[in-house]
Parts: sequence; C-alpha cells; structure tokens
Amino acid sequence: MSLWKMLEGSRVLDLAQPMRKGMPQSPNHPPFRMALERRHGDMVRSDGGSAANEIIVTGGHVGTHVDALAHVSQEGLLHGGVAAAEVMSHEGFGSLGIDGFEPYVGRCVLLDVAAVHGVKTLPAGYEVTADDLVRAAGDLEIREGDAVLVGTGWSRLWESGEEFVGRRDGVPGPGAEAGRWLAERRPRVVGGETIAFEHIAPGRGHATLPVHRIMLVESGVNIVETMRLAELLDAGAREFTLVLNPLPIVGATGAPVRPLAIIEERP
Amino acid sequence: MSLWKMLEGSRVLDLAQPMRKGMPQSPNHPPFRMALERRHGDMVRSDGGSAANEIIVTGGHVGTHVDALAHVSQEGLLHGGVAAAEVMSHEGFGSLGIDGFEPYVGRCVLLDVAAVHGVKTLPAGYEVTADDLVRAAGDLEIREGDAVLVGTGWSRLWESGEEFVGRRDGVPGPGAEAGRWLAERRPRVVGGETIAFEHIAPGRGHATLPVHRIMLVESGVNIVETMRLAELLDAGAREFTLVLNPLPIVGATGAPVRPLAIIEERP
Amino acid sequence: MSLWKMLEGSRVLDLAQPMRKGMPQSPNHPPFRMALERRHGDMVRSDGGSAANEIIVTGGHVGTHVDALAHVSQEGLLHGGVAAAEVMSHEGFGSLGIDGFEPYVGRCVLLDVAAVHGVKTLPAGYEVTADDLVRAAGDLEIREGDAVLVGTGWSRLWESGEEFVGRRDGVPGPGAEAGRWLAERRPRVVGGETIAFEHIAPGRGHATLPVHRIMLVESGVNIVETMRLAELLDAGAREFTLVLNPLPIVGATGAPVRPLAIIEERP
Amino acid sequence: MSLWKMLEGSRVLDLAQPMRKGMPQSPNHPPFRMALERRHGDMVRSDGGSAANEIIVTGGHVGTHVDALAHVSQEGLLHGGVAAAEVMSHEGFGSLGIDGFEPYVGRCVLLDVAAVHGVKTLPAGYEVTADDLVRAAGDLEIREGDAVLVGTGWSRLWESGEEFVGRRDGVPGPGAEAGRWLAERRPRVVGGETIAFEHIAPGRGHATLPVHRIMLVESGVNIVETMRLAELLDAGAREFTLVLNPLPIVGATGAPVRPLAIIEERP
Repeated sequence: MSLWKMLEGSRVLDLAQPMRKGMPQSPNHPPFRMALERRHGDMVRSDGGSAANEIIVTGGHVGTHVDALAHVSQEGLLHGGVAAAEVMSHEGFGSLGIDGFEPYVGRCVLLDVAAVHGVKTLPAGYEVTADDLVRAAGDLEIREGDAVLVGTGWSRLWESGEEFVGRRDGVPGPGAEAGRWLAERRPRVVGGETIAFEHIAPGRGHATLPVHRIMLVESGVNIVETMRLAELLDAGAREFTLVLNPLPIVGATGAPVRPLAIIEERP
Repeated sequence: MSLWKMLEGSRVLDLAQPMRKGMPQSPNHPPFRMALERRHGDMVRSDGGSAANEIIVTGGHVGTHVDALAHVSQEGLLHGGVAAAEVMSHEGFGSLGIDGFEPYVGRCVLLDVAAVHGVKTLPAGYEVTADDLVRAAGDLEIREGDAVLVGTGWSRLWESGEEFVGRRDGVPGPGAEAGRWLAERRPRVVGGETIAFEHIAPGRGHATLPVHRIMLVESGVNIVETMRLAELLDAGAREFTLVLNPLPIVGATGAPVRPLAIIEERP
Repeated sequence: MSLWKMLEGSRVLDLAQPMRKGMPQSPNHPPFRMALERRHGDMVRSDGGSAANEIIVTGGHVGTHVDALAHVSQEGLLHGGVAAAEVMSHEGFGSLGIDGFEPYVGRCVLLDVAAVHGVKTLPAGYEVTADDLVRAAGDLEIREGDAVLVGTGWSRLWESGEEFVGRRDGVPGPGAEAGRWLAERRPRVVGGETIAFEHIAPGRGHATLPVHRIMLVESGVNIVETMRLAELLDAGAREFTLVLNPLPIVGATGAPVRPLAIIEERP
Repeated sequence: MSLWKMLEGSRVLDLAQPMRKGMPQSPNHPPFRMALERRHGDMVRSDGGSAANEIIVTGGHVGTHVDALAHVSQEGLLHGGVAAAEVMSHEGFGSLGIDGFEPYVGRCVLLDVAAVHGVKTLPAGYEVTADDLVRAAGDLEIREGDAVLVGTGWSRLWESGEEFVGRRDGVPGPGAEAGRWLAERRPRVVGGETIAFEHIAPGRGHATLPVHRIMLVESGVNIVETMRLAELLDAGAREFTLVLNPLPIVGATGAPVRPLAIIEERP
C-alpha cells in the first residue's frame, strides 16, 4: 500500500500554538508582532487585482519551536566541545544552528505524566521525576532515535497568559533527574507543552536550565517547546508519527515549527 | 504495518530554501533579517550555563512559503465573494488567513515541464502551457484534493540572486491558460520553485498575476512558492507524499514553511 | 551677538527618556527592541578595523515622541476634515504624517501643576484642570504659536515601570476641560511626561482620549509625550527655548524625538 | 534679548533626509521599513475616535545619523584603548554608545569643497584633500569643539538611489590626509552628505574606512552621515548654529537624527 493511501485512514493533528501578538512567551525573546503592510486596495493592478502582505517580527524561540544545539553552552562550550566563541558571528552560528537539524519524520512516544497523577493538568511548579516517566511509559518501549514528548497538560492554559508563563507560581516540567533518564534513552528529540522544557519552581524563573544543558550540550538532543498536546492527551495517543520541520533559518539558535502528529485509526 | 515502520524504508527530502539575509525575494516584501541578540557569554547563569538567541524580521511571503487565500483580491473581493475591507484589520485577516490552512499531508504529483523540453532548467521568461502540463503528467492521474507541483528547474538558480529574481529576463511559470487547466483538476494546493507561481515576461515584473487570481480568488486553491525541487527533479520523482505545514500566524496572508517530500523506496 | 556666542552662556537640557528594551510604553505599540547585529571582530577589514551595528524595532509612539495630526481621527475624519481612508496606504499617510511637522525651535512655557499643589509628583489618576493651568501660568503669558508643556512630575517614575504606565492606578494629566483651555491659547505644540497626554482614571486605560481629539483633530496642535521634565521642574524653569525635531519618517503617525530645552543663564 | 526673540529673526533648516522604504542606505545595515499597524477604523472607541500607528524596523546607521564612538574598533580597541570585547553584550555597548553623545547645540562651519572646484556636486569617487579643506575654509576659523561639515553636493543625488550609493562609480569624500587635517582641528563632530564620511573609490566599496578610524577611534570625534546640505550650500551658509540630537538609544553604535541649522538673517 502506498504511503498516501495509508494516510487516508489517519488523522493529522496540528501540535502548534497559534502565533499572534500578545501570546505567552519568554521575556528573554523578541515579542511576536505581525502587522499587515499592504492591504487590499492600497495598490490595485491594472486588471483589478490587489495583493496584501505583512511584516513579521519574532524570535527563534517564540511560539512552538525547536531549540538548536547552539542554543545553550556550558562553560563556553557547545555540544561536542565546540567553543561557542569560534562559531558565532553576525551570520549566526556556523555550526550547530537550526539549519543543521534534519527534519524529523518518525516514531514518537508521548509520556502522559498528568494521567499518571490522575489529573488533566499538573500543578504549577510540579517537578516531573524519572519515576513519573517510567510509570507513564508503562510497557511502551522507547527506542534510540525516537521523539519523546512529556505530557503535563500545560498547553490547556495557553489562553490564560500569565498562568501559562508561570512567573509567580512556576511551571511543571522535568527536573535534572528526569532529564538524565530521558537522555539515557538516546532519543532524537524531546519536548513538551511549556515555554521551557524544565521544572520551574515558583518565583524562580529561568535561573538555571539543567535539562537544557543535559539535552543540548551533553547529549546532542534537540528540544521542542510550547507544543499544543492537549488534543493528543485527550485522545489517549501514546505512539504515533511525528513530523518536525522547523524553518531552516541559517545560523539560528532555534526556529518556529508547526509539528504534526499522524495517528493511525484502525477500525 | 505501522506508519513509522513504513517510513523507515522512505526518503524524506527537504523542499525549503535556506533562509538568510540577502536571499532572493520580492522587493514587495520585508527583507529577511536575522541577528543574534544574546550570544554565549553575554549572560552567564550561576552554574556556568549560557543561552543565545536571535531576532528575526521577515514577511509572510519570504523564502519558501504558502499563500493564504486572503493574499489576493479581485475588485475588492476575496475567494467566495468575501469583501476584503470587512475582514482586514490590525489583527490581520479575520477569515481566509494562513491560520485557516489545514496542514496538508497527502499525495503530491510533480509535473516536470523542464524534462518535457529536455532541459534541466527552463529558459527565463518561458510560459508554461496547458499542453506542457498534459505532457508532463503523461499517464499520471491528478485527483481532486491532490497537491500539484510544476517543475521548472528554477530552484537551481537560487544562489544566483539576480537571475533567480529575474527582473530583467523574466521567470518561467504557468500562464493563465495553464493556471486554468490546473484549477480544473481541483487540487488542494499548487506550487513551484519561483518567487511567484506565474509566468513573468522579461522586464515586466509582477504587473498582473493572473494565476494568483485563478487559484486564490476564483478556485480557493493555495499556492506554495520558492520551493527547492531540484533534488526531486533529479531523482525523477513524480508521485510522493507531501507535508505542507506553514506557520500558523493568525490573520496573515501567507507564512513560511519547510515542506517535506516523503518518497517510498522499494527494493 | 551671534547665536552661538549667546548659547555659550546657556544650558542645554536633554528632555528625552533613554530608549532601551523593557522601557515603559503602551501595549498598543510595537515593543522597543535593539540588538547588536555585527559586533567587533565579526568582520575584520584588511587593516585591522572592524565595525559594529544594530537592528532596531520600534513604533512611532515609543519613548519620547511627537504625535502627528494623522494619529487620531474622529468619525473617520482627520484634522481639517480630511477623510482618513483616502490618505492612508502601505506608504503610511499621504498627508498629516509626521514628515509634515516642521521642526520647532522657539519659545516654550512650562506649566508646573505639581508645584501648584505643592508636590513633586501629582497623584496617580489626578485630573489636571483649567484652573490648575491658570494658576501654574501665573503672570506668564502664553502666546499663539508657543510650545506649552504641562508638568506633573510623572517622569520621576520612569524607572518604576508599572507605576509609570499606571494600568491599575491611573496617570495624571489634563482632562477635556484643560485640553480645551490649552487649545484656546492656540499653541503650536503641547506635551508632557506621561505616555498619553491625557487624564487616565484608575483601571480605565485608554478607553477614550478626549485631549487627543481636541488637539490633533479639532485644533491641529501636535502633542509630545513621555518627556523627561524632572530636571526642568527642579530648576524652576518656566520659559525657555525648545527644540523639537522628530525623525522625518514619511507617512508615519508619530516619531521618536530627543527634545532639547535651552535655558539662558544670566549672572 | 532673549534667545527666542533672537530666533524670530533666524531661519531653521532641516538637514535630514526623509526616511522611507527603499531610500539609499548601506547594505551592511537593516533596511528601513515602516508599515501602518492600526489604521483608522480598525479599532473605534466608544466616542467615535480612532488611532493609527506603525511598526518601524531600522538600523542605527540608516538615514541621517550620528556614529557613536563604539561604532568602529581598531585591532579590537575602541577610542581610549577600551577593549571592545569587554563592553559589548546583548544590551549593546556599556560605554561609548550613542547614549553617551551629549546633544550638540553650537557653532558649525561648513566647508564647501564643491564650490572650491566651481561645481554644484563633486564627481563620483573624488578624494577630498586637506588642501581642498584649507581653501574651502578661507579666512573662517575652525575652533576646538566646533562642528565641521564638508560639502560635496552629494545630497542632491539622494533621489537617484544607485548613483547616491555609488557602488559602481564611487562616492566623493575625505581621504585619510583630509581626515587627519580635520582631526587636528579638534572638532566635536564632523560630517557630510554621503552614507559614509569617506572617499570611496569606484568599485571599491567600504573595504577600509580610514577616516572612521581617525575620527572615532584615534580622536574621539563623532561623525554625522547622510545629511541633506544642498539648501545650506545653495544659500552660501558657512557659519551657523547646528543642533545635533540623535535618539538616545542605550548602547547603540549610532542613531538616526534630524539635525537643524539655525541661520541668523540680518537686515
């Protein structure tokens, strides 16, 4: 059977949050802004046609996005011991930038930690542990090179703005121990619903980002953030095909993406 | 067989041009610009970690991108007779914006018109005709709802800059007749390698854009532009799975995308 | 005596707030952002020289700025009955834009309303009245064509961020009555220290902007906002020369400016 | 006599080029872009009022602007031996940025080199020499701390675009020898009409910028560029008051400015 025949019996879920002015994002990154530049009627061609277009200002870590390995350094070194100072310039990163991320189309495992705790959404500031991940995985094998997503239910709070960002009360996510557990599985990419794939304690903000260090610097594993996983969690999806193709912005430390989940629906 | 098992025997081709300052684009749109904002070392956390990030300025029709139906109007009307003036505001388009484009994952037919003429790249300013498309399709059926791409080989000129933009000598692409032939096939989306999916005669620029009118306004068919098809053309690929998931920028008339072709390789 | 001889016995005060990421501004306008693009060392010329530069994103009403007459309309009409719809396009405003503001170098009267009330800074949400202005003017004549600034002391709160913006507690400024009193004096320009030259009641935000209507639409008087007047107020300056030369951004509804006060110091 | 009385008998000339999309600028800097964000009617307040605003993308060296001392380094050092690497970060330059430029209001001498050669506009690629400057100055004394502008007539070509930028034929301006002559006069600031205050030989571009090194690095003298001096030159103005107040962008290597010349007109 051809692939597209097979796809006819599948559901495609959009895992990206919509990008608009005022959406929740980290204050460390340029605020997203889109404005129409030409509107219809501004410039009408001789045949009565008119085109509209926009200007967009954003960051590489704004909305649903993938972190490049170049995003984080430790003691001045990037993944593989590359000295950050030697590869960064006005043209971005000469290596380990997001343009070096080969688009991922393959198996994805979703570990629903909220379900493990019998809730739809984990409490603000909850630290996801290795044990949580083990329980969420159950009998589902994680294979080398897989994508592994951690469900916290946090994408349900997207519209809330302040609560989602969690400056006051924190954000649920994996602590260093869970990060190491994930890294040991040797996935191709990991990710989740929050702005930073980290446990953020109340009032603490992004003081340190141990899971970023473990993934990006120590293990060479990319991270997807601010995903919209609610629909997948509600559907009980645990294993599916993930498409992850961030914009190929040369030299960038990250780029927006519209990830897709393809779920096979069998009769 | 599960989908990802099937994918293991497939090749994934990246159909996006790399996005960088100075890349070819239409002067009607904001020039692409990316600059690192924080570099490693600017702000070092207490544990020796440091993060880098960027600011990005772009347009919705810059690099490889999908045109939303809201992009073009005729006599003030968008597709379906929607009055443009009533749906556009500081928040973009309230309907027919790119956020209304459902991600496409499905069958794609590539019509290699360059091959029909026995060349790698069509001459500047060549008008692709309906007959060219019929000959390129051969016995390959185009079904309602398919994606249909027209191969001109023009993406081979990406690095040339001026020649690619074709202000002086024009750009190959479908004329109105070929546009109508395509529309009659009722595809979900059409596209190609050039900045505008149109025949641009030498020195004429984007004076009128009949194929945009036929597709976006009259037929409700989205357009993908500035694709990198050279590798697909070289491989002789004619039928494959296309993933097309432009960024969900609310109210925008278009958005960048990194399209993927998935080619099944059978022994 | 030549002008510059005369200037040698004068003090020049800078009336602009410094522009930096995170500075207080209205959420209605694009947030200010500046990032270095090239840093020294990124591109070294053959002779050992290197240049650094930046990218700046801002709005026309960000930081200390002048409102163009095109900024506000009433029932679709700009000053002088110009239909807004007929002069605005992708190139901005064809008339009444900030490029039409002739740079002002002339007499300026500062009405210190805080001093009238015996305070350094007026309370949040205080409405400046016509009587306040009369008392602040005292025996100082306001002549047609003058610049007239209203001192509230609010620029002292610049560093406070939230308090300065006043979303919760409001901002002091002229109400409609004081606005009319000012307009009757037929000044060339009016202005003050707050983001909007208006009385903003607690929790009310910019629901209506009557003083903008009176000045920009009805009277053709430009407004300067977010000025740093603290030093002038502390010096007891009431009459001096003001230089007001906003950037000549063609078609814009406002533009940043670094206003200067020149105070003659006599022995 | 008060200053503003004196100003009543003066002419104020605007020395800035208008800022608009597509204006001539160096490709090294982000292209200027302004787009209306809200237009009138997008958001109408309860009282029938409506406000329009814009988004602006620019660089610090775009349009008429002042170079900060931080703009250029030599062998890694800024003016005064400051190590560039130690003062630059995501917040720009901690010292020698444009916010450290005290607004200038004072005597200005205009050296009309075009007039010395009996032309309105110097030829493309002409190198202004120290002798040219001596002859242009004539009996006019240049005092320490003055502003000194060099007239080439080049601002007359602003509308020509390509010719103004001079990539093919070059641009007239001071060579290193003239630069040293100027620096020895110990001015506060120097400037001219071209994008770079340099002699640019045909086809050579900005390969090296010796006058920038002499002024910014060796002498601590700021540079104003892309000024509109044609009107001053036509009026035969040689000595007048200059107002130079670039936007106070914290940490930037330069900033746009709308310089004013105040010419006393005596009966």
